[in-house]
Amino acid sequence: MIKGRQIYEGKAKKVFETDDPELLIVSYKDDATAFNGKKRGTITGKGVINNRMSNLLMEYLQDKGIPAHYVQELNERETLVRKVSIIPLEVIIRNVSAGSFSMRYGVEEGIPFDTPIIEFSYKNDALNDPLINDHHILALKLATAEELNTIKDLAFRINDELCALWKECGVTLVDFKLEFGRCSDGTVILADEISPDTCRLWDSSTAEKLDKDRFRRDLGGVEEAYREIMARLTKKLAEVNK
Amino acid sequence: MIKGRQIYEGKAKKVFETDDPELLIVSYKDDATAFNGKKRGTITGKGVINNRMSNLLMEYLQDKGIPAHYVQELNERETLVRKVSIIPLEVIIRNVSAGSFSMRYGVEEGIPFDTPIIEFSYKNDALNDPLINDHHILALKLATAEELNTIKDLAFRINDELCALWKECGVTLVDFKLEFGRCSDGTVILADEISPDTCRLWDSSTAEKLDKDRFRRDLGGVEEAYREIMARLTKKLAEVNK
Repeated sequence: MIKGRQIYEGKAKKVFETDDPELLIVSYKDDATAFNGKKRGTITGKGVINNRMSNLLMEYLQDKGIPAHYVQELNERETLVRKVSIIPLEVIIRNVSAGSFSMRYGVEEGIPFDTPIIEFSYKNDALNDPLINDHHILALKLATAEELNTIKDLAFRINDELCALWKECGVTLVDFKLEFGRCSDGTVILADEISPDTCRLWDSSTAEKLDKDRFRRDLGGVEEAYREIMARLTKKLAEVNK
Repeated sequence: MIKGRQIYEGKAKKVFETDDPELLIVSYKDDATAFNGKKRGTITGKGVINNRMSNLLMEYLQDKGIPAHYVQELNERETLVRKVSIIPLEVIIRNVSAGSFSMRYGVEEGIPFDTPIIEFSYKNDALNDPLINDHHILALKLATAEELNTIKDLAFRINDELCALWKECGVTLVDFKLEFGRCSDGTVILADEISPDTCRLWDSSTAEKLDKDRFRRDLGGVEEAYREIMARLTKKLAEVNK
C-alpha cells in the first residue's frame, strides 16, 4: 500500500490517498481542540490510543454485523479505511444527560434517559454545527429519507453493542458522536472514529470522567484517563477474544 | 362574563380569569418585542388587529374541524378562550426558507421547500427557546408521543388551510408559530394566537413583508403592513362567508 497525497487535515486527523482509489490512510494526531476549535492543546499519546481504540471498536462492531470503514491498522498512528463521502451530520446518541444537552435544556448532568436519544448536528464549522431535525436534513438534501433511516438504525444498534461492552469494562457510555459515509456504490457505513474524543465514558462506580471532558473542562489527568480507558478495553477484549 | 384577576402578562398579551373556571379572557397589547425581548417597541393598533385576525383565523379553522381555544370576541382587544395548560413548545411550520432557519443553516431566504417543514422549540426564555427534537421532547416529558402526533397532524392541517386562504389574499404564508394546550379533559387544541406577530406573510407578487419582520428588521411601515394584511384577510373572508 503506497501512502499518497494528503487530501485533508482535520482537528485530530490527517487523511492520505493510497494507490487504491477505494482506500485511504487516516493518521491520528495528538492535537486536541474543543468548543469548535476555540480551545486548543495537545494530549500526548492521544493519537496512538484513539487509533488503536477506534480500530478495536470498529472491528468489534463489524463482527456484530455493523458495516464500518475500518480495513486494517498499518502502524500505531495510521489505519487503512474504505474511502467514503462523509454525510455532513454528527449523529449523537445519548444514554445519560450531559454536555450540550444539559446546557441547551437546563438539565442537570448524570440523569439516565428511559430510552436512548438520538440527535443530529449539521457538520458545518462556520455555522457552529447547529442542531438539525429530520425535516431540515431532508429539505437541505444532506441525506435521503432512506439513508436517514439506515443511519438511525445503525446508530441505535451500535449503541446497544457499545453500552454492553463498556458496561463489562466498568464504564457507562454516557453519549457519543458518530459519522457515516457513502461508499462508491451508495451503501451507508460507519466512518470517522470511536474514541474518548468522541464518547463520554464515565467510571460506572465513581462517575469519574475518562474522556475528552477532562481536557474540555481542565480537570487534569487527561493522558492518564485515556490510558486507563484504553487499558480497560484492551483487557476486556482480550478476554472476549480468548 | 365577569373579568377576574390577571393571571399572566406576556410580551404581547395579558390573561384574566373569569367566573367560569374553564374560560379565560385574553387581552391584546400594542407592545412589540423581538429577539427574546432584547428589542422592544410599540406598534400602534397591533393589539386590535391581532385580536381580530387571530379570532377570524381560529373561527375559520374551527369551521374546518380544527379544535382551537377561541370562544368569543368580547371587544376590540379582548377575547374569551378556553382555559388550557400550554404545552411548552413553539411549533413552527415552514413553507419557504426565512428567519432562524436561514440563519441557522446558512441558507438564503425565499427558497420554497418541496414539502412543509415542522420544527419545535422549547418555550423557555431563560434558555432562549432552544430548538428541540422529538426524542428530547419525550425525554424531558414536555408532551407524550400521542400528543406529539396530534400536534404534528394538526399543525400540518392548519398549514394546508392557511396556505390556501392566504394565497387567495395574494399572500405567501412563509412560516408561522403555533402553540397548543391541554384542556381539562386532556384534549390537545390550538391555543395562543395566529397573527402577523406569529406568521411570516409576504405579498405573493412583490415578496414585500407584511408581518412583524418589518419591526424586527427596522423596515418601516410596520403599522401600514398590519393594516394592509388585515384588510386583505377581511375582504377575502367577507367573500367566503357571503
